[in-house]
Amino acid sequence: MNRRMVFYILSWVLRMEAILMLLPIITAVIYREHEIVYFLISAVSCAVFSLLISPRKPKDTKMYTREGFVSVALSWVLLSIFGCLPFYISGAIPHFIDALFETVSGFTTTGASILSSVEELSHCILFWRSFTHWIGGMGILVFVLAILPMSGAENIHIMRAESPGPSVGKLVPKVRSTAKILYSIYLVLTLVEFILLISGGMPAFDAICVSFGTAGTGGFAVKNTGLANYTFYQQMITTIFMILFGVNFNVYFLFYARKPKDALKSEEARAYLFIILVATLLITLDVRCFFPNILESFHHSAFQVASIITTTGFSTQDFDLWPTFSKAILVLLMFIGACAGSTGGGIKVSRIAILWKTVMKEMSSMIHPNSVKIIKMEGKPVEHTVLRSINTYLATYIMIFVASLLIVCYDKFDLITSFTAVAATFNNIGPGLALVGPTSNFSSFSVLSKIILIFDMLAGRLELFPMILLFSIRTWRKQL
Amino acid sequence: MNRRMVFYILSWVLRMEAILMLLPIITAVIYREHEIVYFLISAVSCAVFSLLISPRKPKDTKMYTREGFVSVALSWVLLSIFGCLPFYISGAIPHFIDALFETVSGFTTTGASILSSVEELSHCILFWRSFTHWIGGMGILVFVLAILPMSGAENIHIMRAESPGPSVGKLVPKVRSTAKILYSIYLVLTLVEFILLISGGMPAFDAICVSFGTAGTGGFAVKNTGLANYTFYQQMITTIFMILFGVNFNVYFLFYARKPKDALKSEEARAYLFIILVATLLITLDVRCFFPNILESFHHSAFQVASIITTTGFSTQDFDLWPTFSKAILVLLMFIGACAGSTGGGIKVSRIAILWKTVMKEMSSMIHPNSVKIIKMEGKPVEHTVLRSINTYLATYIMIFVASLLIVCYDKFDLITSFTAVAATFNNIGPGLALVGPTSNFSSFSVLSKIILIFDMLAGRLELFPMILLFSIRTWRKQL
Repeated sequence: MNRRMVFYILSWVLRMEAILMLLPIITAVIYREHEIVYFLISAVSCAVFSLLISPRKPKDTKMYTREGFVSVALSWVLLSIFGCLPFYISGAIPHFIDALFETVSGFTTTGASILSSVEELSHCILFWRSFTHWIGGMGILVFVLAILPMSGAENIHIMRAESPGPSVGKLVPKVRSTAKILYSIYLVLTLVEFILLISGGMPAFDAICVSFGTAGTGGFAVKNTGLANYTFYQQMITTIFMILFGVNFNVYFLFYARKPKDALKSEEARAYLFIILVATLLITLDVRCFFPNILESFHHSAFQVASIITTTGFSTQDFDLWPTFSKAILVLLMFIGACAGSTGGGIKVSRIAILWKTVMKEMSSMIHPNSVKIIKMEGKPVEHTVLRSINTYLATYIMIFVASLLIVCYDKFDLITSFTAVAATFNNIGPGLALVGPTSNFSSFSVLSKIILIFDMLAGRLELFPMILLFSIRTWRKQL
Repeated sequence: MNRRMVFYILSWVLRMEAILMLLPIITAVIYREHEIVYFLISAVSCAVFSLLISPRKPKDTKMYTREGFVSVALSWVLLSIFGCLPFYISGAIPHFIDALFETVSGFTTTGASILSSVEELSHCILFWRSFTHWIGGMGILVFVLAILPMSGAENIHIMRAESPGPSVGKLVPKVRSTAKILYSIYLVLTLVEFILLISGGMPAFDAICVSFGTAGTGGFAVKNTGLANYTFYQQMITTIFMILFGVNFNVYFLFYARKPKDALKSEEARAYLFIILVATLLITLDVRCFFPNILESFHHSAFQVASIITTTGFSTQDFDLWPTFSKAILVLLMFIGACAGSTGGGIKVSRIAILWKTVMKEMSSMIHPNSVKIIKMEGKPVEHTVLRSINTYLATYIMIFVASLLIVCYDKFDLITSFTAVAATFNNIGPGLALVGPTSNFSSFSVLSKIILIFDMLAGRLELFPMILLFSIRTWRKQL
């Protein structure tokens, strides 16, 4: 294990966090808020710590999968610990574990909150809370890769560990250029949403925070009622952009590279849009009696479907009151998740699609034992290693889910609360059902459960393995 | 598709069913019950139908996987349709779909009932209801294989389709001898339980029915209170035998073949007993305040754990009233299930064990990319095809589960009821939680939901694929 290199990466991530804290500081200046002090303290301690752990670039820059996984996992842990300082030392969130929960929920773009009321918080605190979504959405390490003075093939290991999905897609041969293109697309889309929201009459501050939440598929809102009190137009724009941020960024790159035909062919994006359409129609019909007309029923169904499948977690309606059929569809969408290579979480549409094809292939070979069929995805044969990694992912996913559920159940809440609390954090969604429904929050869980849910949010965001390996003794042995 | 051969197998299965109906007829004679008429009608129609579909043995006896799957699936469907006639024409269960549900629940050893009261039913009806468990437990086709005048390698396809577990284990080279040995072990164990129960003071009729239910890991009881009102000793014997019938029958064969050392080495049986022990201890501590002393807490915890993991479904306590933690453990056990090659259902311990080993292996190869590790089970390397079939099984299992859940949710019961109704039928357990808890029944579901649950019971018992292939058009095409 090349520890110096891991520390070097960590140091860069924290340096970046200190710089990013300048934005809430500017916000505090604009609104003349005294919380500026706490952000200054946090930013300085972040910077100092970063210099202490790695004063200079190590000579040996070799990195393997193991180093990639460990630096990504530790980066996210440290990022959250320093990121929660403003909440904690300002007293906005008095308990450290709650502040950490809120910050991890922000960076992992979960959007599960322990706060019962957010409107009393100052602007700079709210800004930082939503900004964590934007930072975590595309990945802080992808950002660091885009600007880090590091060359060589080793940074693919970092990208692989942080990128969501079964196989990492480098858009262009160089990792650094790929990272730059990804962040450019991300920034432009966020800006477009922001402009459309303020042109629809949303206050600029709300529009910034909602755009951050949508872009990162996070879900923190700046009103206690979530997005329920915004206009029809503003909710519609949010629906559309939630769906857009759940699409594989590869598709946007293909448009950018002037290959619109290839972009429109994307199998994963088509499957994703098809699922959204079917789920929306089924729920629209199921909840039609809750609304004055079918249009509103469609509007709110589409919003909730988009919010859950992209794992954003915004809400305009308390869907915990909807019929069981609609709730079951939403719970199912929680697990499916968005496209790989998007900012969304969950199991990912491409994994589900490949699993579906595997099942179909196996059944066909039961009927015709001599037929040879190859599984294809996006027009290319799916490699054996990808198939194996998906199966391992699924098995690991179920095991972590079950272990978390058993521990959380010890809190004696009902099964639906416990089950959806784990589902909503592990898939980085935010709200669940019953006591963790859209109108409730996660504050009443025990410290142990909160720690487990924090782990689940990180494990879910980083696709399981970086977080698990962190707890394996063998990871830390010196020799390979 | 060799249709004549499929019909030939079906004809033998029905002939066997007609003969097996002699037992409830004898019961009716003993208790002088007028329901004897209905059993005679059912047995005769069963026999006549069997002669009509296949008057003589076909010339071409070739069979492949496809024929094996189709004959097993159709056998179970026809078996259930003819098996429900006594319930339906006697008026014991007035609706046909309910009678079919009860019979499928019997043969698949699920034990989910639509009856709210069983004590008013006549002895012969109750006998037949419990006897279906015993017939279905080891598998009717295994029975037919043991006596069928059929030689050749083709019957391995039938055995493979009906036997539970990831890979079929022929105990001896000949399928026919294997089937005979399995049924002998089954019969002896059932007899021992029966003798132990009557020597503990249980009425002979109750002892027969409870033994049938335990042996097949079914769960139909002859009292409205389930097994709650039997003595401590009788419940204890039932606990022990539920656990014994959940063990891979291979283990008993090794004892019989005087290889006790090999028998005790069985990895699956050890894992299975370990899970039972841990689950029992955790629940004992969690529910200790429900009982006067820790011994009773242990007694009832062990009973419920054994009942659920072996997918029997007997109950001495309304565990729906237990704390969430205990309920979560029981729900988890519902999915784990018993050992492969036992009479129990669920995913099976060996599949879980192999999945666990796969995950561990993959993680170790992330840390040490150059290490080569082979997954072993029961001391032998797990073949690639077995791994692939387990992964396909798991993916298919999840898909059927989700689809069933969505349809059942349309009945507007709460999520826990719908979820555990599917879990309890698909894993062939019987009782779930909430409205399908140990003190309730499945009568209030809609006809559509009942049909789905009937499908789930059959799919769960036959390890998914035979039932799915039945609905594939390609299965029925003439050429391969």
